[in-house]
Order: sequence, then structure tokens, then C-alpha cells
Amino acid sequence: MDERPHKHSVRIDLGDRSYEIFIGHRLIDDPASLDGLPAGASAVIVSNVTVAPLYAARLISALQTRFRQVHLVELPDGEAHKHWGSLNLIFDALLEKACDRKTVLFALGGGVVGDMAGFAAACYMRGIPFVQIPTTLLAQVDSSVGGKTAINHPLGKNMIGAFYQPLRVLCDLDTLGSLPDRELSAGLAEVIKYGPIADMAFFDWIEAHMAALRARSPEALSHAIRRSCEIKAAVVGQDERESGLRAILNFGHTFGHAIEAGMGYGAWLHGEAVGCGMVMAARLSRALGGVDQSFVERLTELVRAAGLPTVAPVLDGHDNVGRYLQLMRVDKKAEAGAIRFVVIEGPGRASMQSAPDDMVAEVIRISCAGETQCV
Amino acid sequence: MDERPHKHSVRIDLGDRSYEIFIGHRLIDDPASLDGLPAGASAVIVSNVTVAPLYAARLISALQTRFRQVHLVELPDGEAHKHWGSLNLIFDALLEKACDRKTVLFALGGGVVGDMAGFAAACYMRGIPFVQIPTTLLAQVDSSVGGKTAINHPLGKNMIGAFYQPLRVLCDLDTLGSLPDRELSAGLAEVIKYGPIADMAFFDWIEAHMAALRARSPEALSHAIRRSCEIKAAVVGQDERESGLRAILNFGHTFGHAIEAGMGYGAWLHGEAVGCGMVMAARLSRALGGVDQSFVERLTELVRAAGLPTVAPVLDGHDNVGRYLQLMRVDKKAEAGAIRFVVIEGPGRASMQSAPDDMVAEVIRISCAGETQCV
Repeated sequence: MDERPHKHSVRIDLGDRSYEIFIGHRLIDDPASLDGLPAGASAVIVSNVTVAPLYAARLISALQTRFRQVHLVELPDGEAHKHWGSLNLIFDALLEKACDRKTVLFALGGGVVGDMAGFAAACYMRGIPFVQIPTTLLAQVDSSVGGKTAINHPLGKNMIGAFYQPLRVLCDLDTLGSLPDRELSAGLAEVIKYGPIADMAFFDWIEAHMAALRARSPEALSHAIRRSCEIKAAVVGQDERESGLRAILNFGHTFGHAIEAGMGYGAWLHGEAVGCGMVMAARLSRALGGVDQSFVERLTELVRAAGLPTVAPVLDGHDNVGRYLQLMRVDKKAEAGAIRFVVIEGPGRASMQSAPDDMVAEVIRISCAGETQCV
Repeated sequence: MDERPHKHSVRIDLGDRSYEIFIGHRLIDDPASLDGLPAGASAVIVSNVTVAPLYAARLISALQTRFRQVHLVELPDGEAHKHWGSLNLIFDALLEKACDRKTVLFALGGGVVGDMAGFAAACYMRGIPFVQIPTTLLAQVDSSVGGKTAINHPLGKNMIGAFYQPLRVLCDLDTLGSLPDRELSAGLAEVIKYGPIADMAFFDWIEAHMAALRARSPEALSHAIRRSCEIKAAVVGQDERESGLRAILNFGHTFGHAIEAGMGYGAWLHGEAVGCGMVMAARLSRALGGVDQSFVERLTELVRAAGLPTVAPVLDGHDNVGRYLQLMRVDKKAEAGAIRFVVIEGPGRASMQSAPDDMVAEVIRISCAGETQCV
């Protein structure tokens, strides 16, 4: 009789940097979650003041079966703290504890913790092994998978970072039980994203199961996470360093990053900005001829059903369009000052494209006014 | 009739990260130095307040033939500034100029500039292309080659960094003409290093040509740089990320880093600390049985002939040995608290080894007292 919790596994294929995403219950406690990881002398958990009280003690117990020393670093909570100062708290702790190159770092938390802990692992002594333990839906379906790590710069989100793959990702479904509703919705934005860019059958499934997802049905969440990770794994496996294809995973993110930066990091959750940004990107895709108005309306409705905003915020009362354009020009996908958008070429297919400024301006105007008609 | 300056080339073989080191005269001005580099919209030169006035104008002219925009970032000069604050000056400039992922960064300066500019290139938007233009002997024979980049942390040298390879290295011999004597000597430490660890015939050659090297004979310097780069290329080609072999390039560096950190970064030049550190490491190698006293004396004499210190500084009047050991325990090569040294197993062959604390202590005591007898 198998008493181990039921568990799925998705593989990210990257040659000697390949790894598994485990999806299941009670993974934080399960010693099998650590099978095959290197056994260094010490493990360091990086978490934040909100998540650590919930799960750190259980993780410490599990890690003590493998590591002689286990340390915990608690960062302040929130996107506003995703900067060098917080990163340096991790380096200070690693050096004060005399952590060596074999130390394994565990990122326990949402996307902000994962991005910072991953970047710290990438840089400490030029790279130490690390494991992602995402505790938010957003991190489980997106940010913990694929090796993107970063901190923010006052002039742009995620501008300083590294591509650095974890040894493993542990998506413990039980951690979603304590997630605030607002963060659950934010995570659903990144789930919805995978439909328009890659898999409209998944999009149909999300529409049919939105109520179950918001009610935190373990079966629905497990399927959503698994399918999201499979799509992300396929994309990242083809283009680890975002020289082309991988950029489609940024659907809605160009507008979204402008909203986040323009409102001040933390005012809108990343997923909220992406939800609204996807509606804007769908409108732009329609203007460019990739999708029709019914597609825009269907996506808008699903974003709304997920509990996410669909009306874009006014970032500047005097020159709102100018402010959006200015913020989008420092996007990492921009080239020679030209903003490049992830555009839906047809339902389930995306590509990178530029668009005329006046077309983008009209999308911004309509989106900030909350109008749903076509551009 | 070929009017192009005479030029040597050494290849670093790292698969799709392979690149060439050019060694020759007037490379900064030579348009051929840029052949085959990607043609982004903008180039950014990172230099310092000492080097930029000497060479930046010429480099800017050359770059303007290929890039629409060329910007210059001048950092403060010296190891004491190799920290996050200076790194952030580079990020600020890149973002203020709206530099995109295709921007090519040029590191124009010594090891400190190269390490910081390289790390900035590794992190900006998770990686942009960069070119090393080392202007000191130390950087030409060692730090600009092989992709190690880093900044210092108050608790340890080069603790925060990345393995990130340049697109090319341009060793312009003419830049050595303006190098202060003290920095020339510091560079010779890293040249001497290659003998004991890999090539005693080269060691013989250095002994025979030390006067020519210190007199800055272009032929002697060109040969020393070329042979040093060849040895480094062979080692890095086998072990890019220092999982084993590459660590032998750190001969003298474990003691040397302790001297640098203990004296305060910048008080001793890196090469000076390495020169003295090699004498200490040779004494340890003798104590472990790899070499005899005549080898220690021969190396000591060559370090002295290069104009480098051979007597170690006292770092702490109350517990000097304890202070050395404490500083060496945070070395990146340490594992589980055990210091690991690059030890000469026999002239021309090195490996990583631990040593009993009392043996290391005796080496420190004798080295600080300036005694030359055996341990």
C-alpha cells in the first residue's frame, strides 16, 4: 500500500541543467522530495516574514535529516522589497554563516522570494545550487519554473538578474490553502496566459473550471499547475535564454510591467497587472489582425471571472499615453527604442511584433476608459 | 605590404561561448579589432577616472564606426570601489540611456573595471554581450580571460559574481607603456604563477627575461602575455566553472586574499598579495612534500626580482595566525570550514589540498617574520 502522497512530475529538459517539477500534497514534509539532491554541509532557507511562520519549521525539520546545519533568512514581504538591499541580507547571512559553494539554498515563498533567492544563488561565489519551493499559485505555474531570476531597479522591473536553473521545484498544493483570495486571482492570470499563446483546449478547460479553481479544488488546481508547467517546460526547453520563442511567455507583460512600475511596485500585484495587460495585448492583437473582437471579449470575461482588473489605471493625468509608452520603452524586449509586444497571431499562437505608436496609444486610451469596443 | 599592426591570437575553446584573445599594438584604434562583433544600436564603455582620459577618446572613435550611440561610464579607481555602489552606477547609466539587450558593453581598464563591467554585463537584463579591453598587465594575463566576474563583499573578496564569458579580449600592448611600475610588478605576479602550476620551461624563460619585462620590452611582454593566456585558455577550456582543475589558477591566492582583506582592500595591490601569497603557498607545498627548499628559494627570488613583497604583513598584533585562518576560511575554495590550498605537487604540477592548521600556522609565522628557512 503506497502511503506516499499522490504526486505528479514535469521535467524541464535542458541538458545537464535538466530538472523535475514535483506537484503534490505535503511535499514540504516528504523526505522523498529531497531524494537525489546534493548533500552539502549546510542548507539555507530564504523566505519572508509572512510565509516563514507558516511553513519554515516543517521545512527545517525535513532538511535536518540531510544537512548538518540549516539556517533561515526572513526577508520583508512584497514586490517593493525586491531590490539590492534585500538581496544583500541573503549574502550577509550566507557569509556570516561561512556558507561554502556546496551550500544548498531553498527559496520558500512566492515569486518575489523565488526571484531574489534564485538570483542570490546565481551570484553567491558565482553560483551555488538551489531549490524552488513556491507557495503561491503564481510562483507554482510560472515564476519558479524556467530559471529566470532578478531584482528590480528603480527604472525598471526585473532589470538586474540571471538565467539560473534550480535543481528542483516543489509545488506543494497544501500551501495554496492559506493564500489570500487576491493572490489566488493573481496566479490565475498566469494560468490563463498559457491558453491564448499555446493551447486553446486548456483555455476551454480554464473557462469551465474557473469556479472550481477559485474555490481551491485540489483536483482543479493540480491540473492547472501541471498543464501550465508542461507548456512552460516545452517553451523553456526550446529557448532557455529567451533569444526568441520564450518571449511569448510574456503575453500581457509589456503593458503589465508599465502598470506595475507606473503605479509603484506593490500597488498592483504582478498577476493583476498581467491580467489587465493581457486584455490590452488582446486588443492590440485584434488591431493587428490576429484575433477578432469575440476573442478579445472572451479573454476579457475570463480575466474578470478570475477576479482580476480589466480596466487599466491612469498613470499620469496630464499625459497618460506618453507615460505608458515611456515605461514600455525600457522593457527588456524592446530593441533600439522600439517596443515589442507579444501578439496573438491566432487563438493558441503568439509571436513578437512591433506596433505603430498611434495604434498602441489607442489601445491604452480605450483600456483606461474601460471601453470594450474594438480599437 | 601589410600595414596592420602585428597581432597574435589565442583561442578560448568553450563551445558556443568560445572566443579569441587578440594581443598586439594599437588594437584600440584598429577597426579590425571589432570585426565579427554583433552590431547593436549602442555601445557602452565602462572605464575609470584614471584610464578613461588616456584611451576612451580613441575607443569612442573606433566604436562610432559601428554603433549609432556610444556612451562612457567612468567609475572611481581602485579595489576599494569594487562593490555594489559602483556596479549600480553602470546599471543606472544603462537604464538612463535606455540600453537594450543588444547593447555591447566594453570594459576598458584593469582587473577591477573588467570584473565589475563583466558582472554588470552578466546581470543587466539577465545578460548582454561584452568585450574586455584590459589595460594592465595583470588583467591581460589573467583577470580579463576566462569569464570570472565579481564584486567584493565586506566579508570576502569576489564573493558576489558570475561566470560570464566576453565576446573577445583585446590586449593592447601599448596601454602597458603608461602603467605605473608598481602595477607592472603586480601583473608579473600572475605571469610567474603559471610556471609552478603548469610550465617550468616558462618559469625558466621568466627568470631569464625578468629585466626585459620590467624594462617593458614589447617582445618580452608580448611573449609573456601570449604564453600566460595559452595556459589559462587550456585550463579554462577544461573546467570553465571551477569544479576542479581551474582552481589551480588560484596558486598563492588563498593567502593573498587574506592579506588583501586583512589589510583593507586597496592597501596591497592584488598582484602584490598574490606574489607574497605564492611564497607562502610554496612553503606550504614544501611542508607537504611536493617541492624542496631550493624551489621555495628560487620562487621567492623571482617574486622579489619582479619587485614584489616576499614578507607577509602582520594582520593582527594580538592573534595574527588566528586572523589569517579566519579570513582564509571564507575563501570560495573552502569546504565545510576546511581551507583548501593550491599546492605544488612537483615543479609544474598543482592540485587542491587541505593542510593541518598547525602546519599553516607555522607557514604564516615564518612568512610574517621574513625568514627564509624551511618550515
